[in-house]
Amino acid sequence: MNWLDEVKWDANGLVPVIAQEQGSNDVLMFAWMDREALARTAELGRAVYFSRSRQKLWFKGEESGHVQTVHEIRIDCDNDVVLLKVTQQGHEPGIACHTGRHSCFFSKYQNGQWVATEPVLKDPASIYTSSPR
Amino acid sequence: MNWLDEVKWDANGLVPVIAQEQGSNDVLMFAWMDREALARTAELGRAVYFSRSRQKLWFKGEESGHVQTVHEIRIDCDNDVVLLKVTQQGHEPGIACHTGRHSCFFSKYQNGQWVATEPVLKDPASIYTSSPR
Repeated sequence: MNWLDEVKWDANGLVPVIAQEQGSNDVLMFAWMDREALARTAELGRAVYFSRSRQKLWFKGEESGHVQTVHEIRIDCDNDVVLLKVTQQGHEPGIACHTGRHSCFFSKYQNGQWVATEPVLKDPASIYTSSPR
Repeated sequence: MNWLDEVKWDANGLVPVIAQEQGSNDVLMFAWMDREALARTAELGRAVYFSRSRQKLWFKGEESGHVQTVHEIRIDCDNDVVLLKVTQQGHEPGIACHTGRHSCFFSKYQNGQWVATEPVLKDPASIYTSSPR
């Protein structure tokens, strides 16, 4: 059986994907893949997602240069969530978030509100030549 | 504005949730929450999910005893994915997966196939008195 057929794609043909930093184990971001994105990720060794807003393949880093090198591709017990172990390229420390932060998960719940807690490492305006992501 | 109103709930009123182990930073599992599940999680300091298969609140550990103590609740830059930092209770090392493994992400892509790589820490038959999860 083809490994791509073992993935339980949702009604839209997508699977949720968690990108985790190799080494620190920080969760960098969350995105989606279709079958082609997952196949290309395995083939290229870099993260390729499916942009739901643009409805097409999203080669992470195609505009920002913040490419993710993929070390491992994992799947969960239900075969319906993918986990990537990646190295975030293009800046030190790595910037995965389009806001210029290390991780997209920079807001924390505190006393009834969400509070941004992580520093912006680079101005997003200097990361993107055109529209974000 | 109520912090729960800032979450971008999907068409089904749900948000994807990543549970990450405090300390090791291991990604333990992925699940979903509705508004009530997130409110209860913050209130109780333990993970409460929404079971899509059973269409009701799922107090993680209600059958297995493998409760997750919640240290942090984070949200991503788009306000549509939640990340929990948890301690997995009930066994040492923690068992988050219904298969008796530490993490649900125990299968790794290798040479065109998914290979289970993590040990079963406890027989699932001895974890659950009735049906899994």
